[in-house]
Amino acid sequence: MTNPTAAMIVIGDEILSGRTRDSNMHHLAGELSEVGIDLKEVRVIGDDRGVIIAAVQALSKAFDHVFTSGGIGPTHDDITADCIAAAFNRAIDVRDDARSILAAFYEKNGTDLNTARLRMARIPEGAELIENPVSAAPGFKLENVHVMAGVPSVFQAMVASVLPTLTGGAKLISETLRIERGEGDIAGPLGEVAEAHPALSIGSYPFQRNGVFGAHVVIRGNDAEDINSAMSQLKAIFG
Amino acid sequence: MTNPTAAMIVIGDEILSGRTRDSNMHHLAGELSEVGIDLKEVRVIGDDRGVIIAAVQALSKAFDHVFTSGGIGPTHDDITADCIAAAFNRAIDVRDDARSILAAFYEKNGTDLNTARLRMARIPEGAELIENPVSAAPGFKLENVHVMAGVPSVFQAMVASVLPTLTGGAKLISETLRIERGEGDIAGPLGEVAEAHPALSIGSYPFQRNGVFGAHVVIRGNDAEDINSAMSQLKAIFG
Repeated sequence: MTNPTAAMIVIGDEILSGRTRDSNMHHLAGELSEVGIDLKEVRVIGDDRGVIIAAVQALSKAFDHVFTSGGIGPTHDDITADCIAAAFNRAIDVRDDARSILAAFYEKNGTDLNTARLRMARIPEGAELIENPVSAAPGFKLENVHVMAGVPSVFQAMVASVLPTLTGGAKLISETLRIERGEGDIAGPLGEVAEAHPALSIGSYPFQRNGVFGAHVVIRGNDAEDINSAMSQLKAIFG
Repeated sequence: MTNPTAAMIVIGDEILSGRTRDSNMHHLAGELSEVGIDLKEVRVIGDDRGVIIAAVQALSKAFDHVFTSGGIGPTHDDITADCIAAAFNRAIDVRDDARSILAAFYEKNGTDLNTARLRMARIPEGAELIENPVSAAPGFKLENVHVMAGVPSVFQAMVASVLPTLTGGAKLISETLRIERGEGDIAGPLGEVAEAHPALSIGSYPFQRNGVFGAHVVIRGNDAEDINSAMSQLKAIFG
């Protein structure tokens, strides 16, 4: 049994120009690992209609789930919702259910629901809304694509709304052994352990801190017994 | 005159599983902005031969420069060099120039240049070496692809070696205006400023901190005069 697969699309010129450091990728990666969905690819792209449409079409075909972040605010450069609609050949307009959510939120805050804010109620035909408990403007799900905000607090809240609705696979289990030896000394025996446990993913991540160097060897997989056996083998060699 | 374009490929299961938070993307994005090379896409992918080869082939065709990080260490899961060779149909083996660099470094440190470490001297035919002043094992450039280490300190040192060899374009200039108004109030006038300055990229990035909310409006472009004019217009509206 293999786990469901996923891809993420991070949308925004500000990430590619180096102005903003993305944190949504790392958050989603950790959350998906927890529920047993394998994140296979992340693409970071700019606010460019053709590029967004192409990425959505390619990744929604290739993977079970796609998650996007960014580009669903009220300003002229927020074009994600329109691109998702175009990618699936759907109509898009201000939708009553989304408008009601915004109207209630802004009325409570005494803020005007002007034309710009109303753009955030543009939802493609047939999409389901994703709740935004932080700032009301909803995300949405169309086909297998979950469209979410780029602001980290809103993105995280939307991920929390979405994940319980997805069927995950076996949770990824991960065990780490810290070995204070050069990675070049670890590599040979490690390759043998990896060969003896083909179902596991075994990685080595070198560190060098305060004059101490070595590597964290991480064993990942879905079968705890298999992981324990590989870990014992490793400890017998390097313990 | 348009700037040269670039893409980056971040390679490593540990990023996609959420274990490690990538920092190389943000570093490279900032450095490329400085020299006037437009980063257009970043792909984060796992340690999978077919996926790496496909990404290298697609992005090296689509952009002027490609930068990779990760997968060139001594362990069994370090398969990037072999994948790059395969992507361009080149032979790959331990190369004398790379072996000499490693031999000198390890001799000085009193460390054994064993089979695993020697893997780091596997360089595709016709590639130029990229200097690694941190831990000796070189990166390399093949066609328009720069292959660099994943360890951030080594990645950064390699980027510093490579960038002076590339011809950049006009440096990206960026000006920011902090506006303490809701993004929904800013959006309308901002769209008009953007329309009046089609050569500029104008983005709005909302914030909410200590009860104060608003947006940073960032104007980016290569023409300082154009940026100043747009910024004056903005200040006249929101100042």
